[in-house]
Amino acid sequence: MRILLAQSAGFCFGVKRATRMAFEAAEQHCTICSLGPIIHSPQLVSKLAEKGVEVVKNVDDLHGGAVIIRSHGVTAGEMEALQKRQIEVVDATCPFVKKAQQHAAMLSREGYAVVLVGEAEHPEVQGIVSYAAKGDVFVVADRSQAEKLPMRPRVGIVAQTTQSFDNFQQIVDVCLGKSHELRVFNTICDATSVRQNEAKSLASQSDLMIVVGGFNSANTNRLAQICQEIQPRTRHVETVDQIDPEWFAGVQVVGITAGASTPRWLIEEVVSVVSAIGK
Amino acid sequence: MRILLAQSAGFCFGVKRATRMAFEAAEQHCTICSLGPIIHSPQLVSKLAEKGVEVVKNVDDLHGGAVIIRSHGVTAGEMEALQKRQIEVVDATCPFVKKAQQHAAMLSREGYAVVLVGEAEHPEVQGIVSYAAKGDVFVVADRSQAEKLPMRPRVGIVAQTTQSFDNFQQIVDVCLGKSHELRVFNTICDATSVRQNEAKSLASQSDLMIVVGGFNSANTNRLAQICQEIQPRTRHVETVDQIDPEWFAGVQVVGITAGASTPRWLIEEVVSVVSAIGK
Repeated sequence: MRILLAQSAGFCFGVKRATRMAFEAAEQHCTICSLGPIIHSPQLVSKLAEKGVEVVKNVDDLHGGAVIIRSHGVTAGEMEALQKRQIEVVDATCPFVKKAQQHAAMLSREGYAVVLVGEAEHPEVQGIVSYAAKGDVFVVADRSQAEKLPMRPRVGIVAQTTQSFDNFQQIVDVCLGKSHELRVFNTICDATSVRQNEAKSLASQSDLMIVVGGFNSANTNRLAQICQEIQPRTRHVETVDQIDPEWFAGVQVVGITAGASTPRWLIEEVVSVVSAIGK
Repeated sequence: MRILLAQSAGFCFGVKRATRMAFEAAEQHCTICSLGPIIHSPQLVSKLAEKGVEVVKNVDDLHGGAVIIRSHGVTAGEMEALQKRQIEVVDATCPFVKKAQQHAAMLSREGYAVVLVGEAEHPEVQGIVSYAAKGDVFVVADRSQAEKLPMRPRVGIVAQTTQSFDNFQQIVDVCLGKSHELRVFNTICDATSVRQNEAKSLASQSDLMIVVGGFNSANTNRLAQICQEIQPRTRHVETVDQIDPEWFAGVQVVGITAGASTPRWLIEEVVSVVSAIGK
């Protein structure tokens, strides 16, 4: 059995940076919390907990010390509350997410109705939305939602950084017919499209596709969905013990990839278990 | 035989305005020229010639008097030359074309590479292009030409006012993948899309479709092309004497529409000849 491991599997630039900043902050501070899990990997969050990094849900749950802002960023309101309470901030917001927040703020300030392509419940999306508070702001997940948008003379579009380009393009397409001026910032992170394109290529060459990453990770779920469309035998696992040897019956080629928040060691464990099954 | 005449057939707002201004100017000035034919209707240009309006090709061909700028507009260079020579200008540029010129100028000034969706040879396009002289400017007629465009960080898009929305949308689609920021002004005139949509609807209900208008009129040619795709029995005529009774063999329903530069009297003549054939 042959294993094709995606070169782009695992931590992206923003997650690598946030993780490094979190471990460094844990060394430097006695009392340290992260506002929400630092990344969508329960396994990495456990490792940070061992170093004393506690996860809190709200700014109100903090009692002094320092706070790490995760790669997804926080809302403008949360940032303001932290500043008011003079809590020390270690800002690990991904620089690409920050850019999307800034574009949304500028568009809103300049009078555009803001359309954010993304999942309404995702913390990154909630953060970006909060910066576009001057006027209309719409979160749109797909083409059919975009078709329900009202007409607006000037529409500004930004995207959740992990969105697929195809979906983004379809929504821009629809919005073009709903406005006189359309101003679009493609804030989709290259890492996401590189990973998605490589996943598509692997899925088309494999008999079985394994996607490794947190079940709470939006980008890993999307990666699994993209693979599933090409190779129906796609399995999404969070840890190695979820792998079932029965999946491999008659399989010649296994493709393996992983989301942007999947630690290297989890990927390596999966590769090693799959190798053992294949022998 | 039933005749379906498009409500939107004939002069659009800009052409109506330019024609009225031209006839008024002919009354008021002894020496009056138009820079290029005032609209793409040889029949109307003849009527104006009877009133003393001479058509000249270049600013250099003018010898004093007043000049009418046609609905398509002129280039920034021509406007400057007219001002330098202190020639009196009757500016009949369509206000929608003027808007496209202004958007192109603003985009160019603000550092966007400008993409103009249109036909490179069309005087309206040459006019708009001339206002985007600060940096890159590309005229793109269709999707395949757009695919050859280079990558640019910031791209601004405007359209020749008579373009079809579908074509515009496809080009925007391609440009989205070639830039980080895309700023699009939909400068397509409503009159064009209303006329095109009504033509599509008529073509699908008719056994024969007649499109009336100048063979040198881009919007009439496009209208004929749109009808042809739906009803292969589509005929483009400029005047009533081009109608061949043989076209009507076995025809139950005839659709008639006309371009934005087709005078009312030409349409009425066509309707009356078709009625006579159908009796």
